Amino acid sequence: MKDQGIVVRNIERADASVLAALAQCGVATVHEAQGRSGLMASHLRPIYFGASVAASAITISAPPGDNWMVHVAVELVKPGDILVLAPTSPSDAGYFGDLLATSLRARGGVGLVIDAGVRDIRTLTEMRMPVWSKAVCAQGTVKETLGSVNVPIVCAGTLVNPGDVIVADDDGVCVVRRPEAVEVLQKARARLASEEAKRVRLASGELGLDIYDMRKRLAEKGLRYV
Amino acid sequence: MKDQGIVVRNIERADASVLAALAQCGVATVHEAQGRSGLMASHLRPIYFGASVAASAITISAPPGDNWMVHVAVELVKPGDILVLAPTSPSDAGYFGDLLATSLRARGGVGLVIDAGVRDIRTLTEMRMPVWSKAVCAQGTVKETLGSVNVPIVCAGTLVNPGDVIVADDDGVCVVRRPEAVEVLQKARARLASEEAKRVRLASGELGLDIYDMRKRLAEKGLRYV
Amino acid sequence: MKDQGIVVRNIERADASVLAALAQCGVATVHEAQGRSGLMASHLRPIYFGASVAASAITISAPPGDNWMVHVAVELVKPGDILVLAPTSPSDAGYFGDLLATSLRARGGVGLVIDAGVRDIRTLTEMRMPVWSKAVCAQGTVKETLGSVNVPIVCAGTLVNPGDVIVADDDGVCVVRRPEAVEVLQKARARLASEEAKRVRLASGELGLDIYDMRKRLAEKGLRYV
Amino acid sequence: MKDQGIVVRNIERADASVLAALAQCGVATVHEAQGRSGLMASHLRPIYFGASVAASAITISAPPGDNWMVHVAVELVKPGDILVLAPTSPSDAGYFGDLLATSLRARGGVGLVIDAGVRDIRTLTEMRMPVWSKAVCAQGTVKETLGSVNVPIVCAGTLVNPGDVIVADDDGVCVVRRPEAVEVLQKARARLASEEAKRVRLASGELGLDIYDMRKRLAEKGLRYV
Amino acid sequence: MKDQGIVVRNIERADASVLAALAQCGVATVHEAQGRSGLMASHLRPIYFGASVAASAITISAPPGDNWMVHVAVELVKPGDILVLAPTSPSDAGYFGDLLATSLRARGGVGLVIDAGVRDIRTLTEMRMPVWSKAVCAQGTVKETLGSVNVPIVCAGTLVNPGDVIVADDDGVCVVRRPEAVEVLQKARARLASEEAKRVRLASGELGLDIYDMRKRLAEKGLRYV
Amino acid sequence: MKDQGIVVRNIERADASVLAALAQCGVATVHEAQGRSGLMASHLRPIYFGASVAASAITISAPPGDNWMVHVAVELVKPGDILVLAPTSPSDAGYFGDLLATSLRARGGVGLVIDAGVRDIRTLTEMRMPVWSKAVCAQGTVKETLGSVNVPIVCAGTLVNPGDVIVADDDGVCVVRRPEAVEVLQKARARLASEEAKRVRLASGELGLDIYDMRKRLAEKGLRYV
Repeated sequence: MKDQGIVVRNIERADASVLAALAQCGVATVHEAQGRSGLMASHLRPIYFGASVAASAITISAPPGDNWMVHVAVELVKPGDILVLAPTSPSDAGYFGDLLATSLRARGGVGLVIDAGVRDIRTLTEMRMPVWSKAVCAQGTVKETLGSVNVPIVCAGTLVNPGDVIVADDDGVCVVRRPEAVEVLQKARARLASEEAKRVRLASGELGLDIYDMRKRLAEKGLRYV
Repeated sequence: MKDQGIVVRNIERADASVLAALAQCGVATVHEAQGRSGLMASHLRPIYFGASVAASAITISAPPGDNWMVHVAVELVKPGDILVLAPTSPSDAGYFGDLLATSLRARGGVGLVIDAGVRDIRTLTEMRMPVWSKAVCAQGTVKETLGSVNVPIVCAGTLVNPGDVIVADDDGVCVVRRPEAVEVLQKARARLASEEAKRVRLASGELGLDIYDMRKRLAEKGLRYV
Repeated sequence: MKDQGIVVRNIERADASVLAALAQCGVATVHEAQGRSGLMASHLRPIYFGASVAASAITISAPPGDNWMVHVAVELVKPGDILVLAPTSPSDAGYFGDLLATSLRARGGVGLVIDAGVRDIRTLTEMRMPVWSKAVCAQGTVKETLGSVNVPIVCAGTLVNPGDVIVADDDGVCVVRRPEAVEVLQKARARLASEEAKRVRLASGELGLDIYDMRKRLAEKGLRYV
Repeated sequence: MKDQGIVVRNIERADASVLAALAQCGVATVHEAQGRSGLMASHLRPIYFGASVAASAITISAPPGDNWMVHVAVELVKPGDILVLAPTSPSDAGYFGDLLATSLRARGGVGLVIDAGVRDIRTLTEMRMPVWSKAVCAQGTVKETLGSVNVPIVCAGTLVNPGDVIVADDDGVCVVRRPEAVEVLQKARARLASEEAKRVRLASGELGLDIYDMRKRLAEKGLRYV
Repeated sequence: MKDQGIVVRNIERADASVLAALAQCGVATVHEAQGRSGLMASHLRPIYFGASVAASAITISAPPGDNWMVHVAVELVKPGDILVLAPTSPSDAGYFGDLLATSLRARGGVGLVIDAGVRDIRTLTEMRMPVWSKAVCAQGTVKETLGSVNVPIVCAGTLVNPGDVIVADDDGVCVVRRPEAVEVLQKARARLASEEAKRVRLASGELGLDIYDMRKRLAEKGLRYV
Repeated sequence: MKDQGIVVRNIERADASVLAALAQCGVATVHEAQGRSGLMASHLRPIYFGASVAASAITISAPPGDNWMVHVAVELVKPGDILVLAPTSPSDAGYFGDLLATSLRARGGVGLVIDAGVRDIRTLTEMRMPVWSKAVCAQGTVKETLGSVNVPIVCAGTLVNPGDVIVADDDGVCVVRRPEAVEVLQKARARLASEEAKRVRLASGELGLDIYDMRKRLAEKGLRYV
């Protein structure tokens, strides 16, 4: 967060195949698979229902109400990247709208995570450009003060390094460290397989109390049925 | 709220026919019919638009970030029941997801009201499993600490006894005391009939000022037209 | 805000053709066109996605939890008007539901902006009666205390005079002073034309950094690429 | 909450000696002693530092922005009573100021707990009239709509019956059921005695890890020192 | 709010004797005296207890996180003025600290009302420089973007014209229109006199129910004692 | 945040002399000196006015409503350390009270920063044990689930590494990276010296507009005096 005015051009990214596979797993599963860590705060919500992505983070540290650095960041976007913006103090101004979305898509960018506001959400929805934001707000921004691009940031309570994998869907946004993405994917897949087996048993009416063998431990803790 | 670790197996429930009829009336009408009482706080929102239920409450008092008692509660669910969960201190963790929803449905449960978070909302939406919650949050929970099931709880500012009727739709969540359900239903139906007649008059351009005979009282209070 | 109990019968309104044209421009563009001013706070959200209106404000100052003045206001509505309600102290009670919506529509009213709550939102959505509100809440209101109609109010942080133009869509709600509506419309149209040209260039992959000629100013401010 | 317009004249109260003893114990200890239950939400804060009371609840259910029922309640106050007010929908209006405080004191009342606003807090502080409130707000109230006095209410998320014991200090507000007050007092005293012994050991540098014998259980759970 | 970049040098002010007298009345009384209007939202709180002022508003419309206009405003301050700042989008950055306070005092300024953040509050408290703010926050601001000084603004939900009288104390902040200041002062004094008489009666144990003659109206409304 | 159940025994710390000197500088100055970075969110507030510390962070990642790891952390405290706790999901439960404060002090610990709740604040105040917290809440916690100690955490929106310097006073809480502490101190001292010179000039009535030479740039930006 410190040295504002810095832009890191080149970052490492996870393999596209890993990203695609993590998107299939979904936020809740990925979050569990990596030990219930990396989740952004639940005030980040998608602007429309049904979007689901996994992408490489282009991080942006921006002043409140100033979206100049978004323009700087778009130049660095490669196909499969997602912008992740944290303001340096709380803001719900609309940093991003349909023009920037058009530009982002032209560069291959797949979405935006922003702990602030966005606007033009009808057009963004029609474009199917997914955004997870703190607010929807038509309030415009200025282009006066430097921030930084591709430096570590804290977004919605979670540390994000440039190139980290962002997994986002209707449940929220989760960060996977880039070097751990393959391992997390393996654990997430194992979890999905295990869940599928449990889902069949639960759907047949079997209880979690029995499937997970909870009754004895509940009794030991003192649970009383009356 | 006090004696944690207690599970009440058997509760009384309202008749299924009364539940079905209350669901038809909707939250706003039921709330008016019982004297503008029983409404939960407006921060409880449905995860998808269009759900409408009336069901018998299985109440859950749970520690923050611990969904163990949900598993205990599911065993007690009978067809037509709804889970109602209040954490013992504020939490937006995701206590409930697609596996528990699968289990709940297999037992005949019709939904969840929770003053905390849920996850897997896309799957829950596809399943048409209605949930009214304070947050959507992929944050997982643990299974370490006892709570209670089927004890009186305060959920989103409103007292809920086990077996009370929960009426919930896009407007929010309302609680009807089980012993009063039949009487409230009658009042709600009378209200609906009265509203229908008024709707016809209002649709024709007649004014509420005249239908409700307000002009004299407004003048007495001192209303001045300028 | 001061002289409660006052109703101003006659107000000036913008031309219907100007209203229609402003609705086409949308909130974000109108807000920019008038110098990033007039936006209501972002906690006002539409009850359904896709509504877009520009209409003349019938202003209502109402006590908390008391919707008497809404009935008074509906009588003054002319086709193309929108109700704008600010409570005199914060409230999320449901001031407006399907009966009032029926009455409002019968008089030609096109919607509601309210810094408080509404209810019956499923019916309102089926009616396509757009509402921007702070809350959805079935909590009823009383009819006991006077407020005022068609006096200047502050709604969601923004001053609204009776007859001012309210532009509202998925991005929020913006107020245009009635005497300035024509000028703002011209600026908004110019802006849209300019944006369309930029959109084509951005869609082709050209960068905002170049289109807006930002590189030199960024370098002067000290931006460093590493 | 239902039958508004009801005033219960006579209620049972805990013994003055029990109240005095509970006040000595403090909120945190009482709350622990009764199984971590009964605490009101932490948004209730005292208007000045250092107040500490235990008193019998005169409960008030009041409409938003309407303090008529406070006047009704004051007549019922006996020495050692505290007013506890919950609005029927959220409000931060100032229901209570120096005149009502003067009246309350003249009747022997010892304070106010209110899930809404108060005003004249400098005078209240000079009078040493303790108040726990959600807001400080000079916004006035009306006297137009009935509520109820001495009926069960939910205040800041917690059920309060008339005559229940309210224990309040700088840590917040806790409710003790009147019939359980003696038992809770005994447990609280035992807890204080136990805490005193532990405080001496902790002050000498002994660790909670050892005093509470936690090391083995931590190791069993898998805690790793690196 | 519209024409940013405008500074109005000369404004009209209320008489110093009127200001001094209004400060004596206090916010709650002044607010009642002018018909329960003009109060700013209750999220504005004083940084220390016991301050009480009435002063002429120098209004500031400032971008989020940019305090340049505060420097411009200080030059226009005359003895007895107070700065009133509203950001153009929500911000809790610290716009004002001990250096600006030193400068403000040197010009005769008596305080600050700000719907954003301040810092150096220990020094401000030692200086007895009263501030009412939304937040305390050490986050710095920039000096890059123009705002306006001495234009009408909406601060914490209330319209403020330059030269309006700001009355502020521990209960919050109230705005009195400059041309109405003398009349409001007269009403406030009358109110204080009336309150003093009532205080004596209430202190003697007489009830508001009797002093305000409420019993008959309560009975007519249907209040039942049980 | 990931590998829960880990305790790092040995961490590096800044020199005591550097800590003492940073405490003298205060949060606002230190925050500016390191480029307006490292500030925790402004919802962290001190429990009493006037505390000011700079100390080495013992970091704690703890489950919601579970303070077991605080006991683990206290063993690792050396004189001059401060506990910094972030819950893994939002919580305002009271993790820390007078017993833990007694133990912390016995080990030489100088305070607590916690993005959750604390209790026993009267005793903590009497002890002069400074705490910056999100809430004051008597709600108790359990000791059931592992967290971690001395791993990197994000607390109130800011990354904290074990051993980083926490500077905290009435303005809030700021983090200084341990390896940068000496450099930040030098910059902070230079800033204080510069501010002192400016304070003298400002106190004499000279304006910031002139001292900082702003007039020309304001005119270039288009500021108009009218």
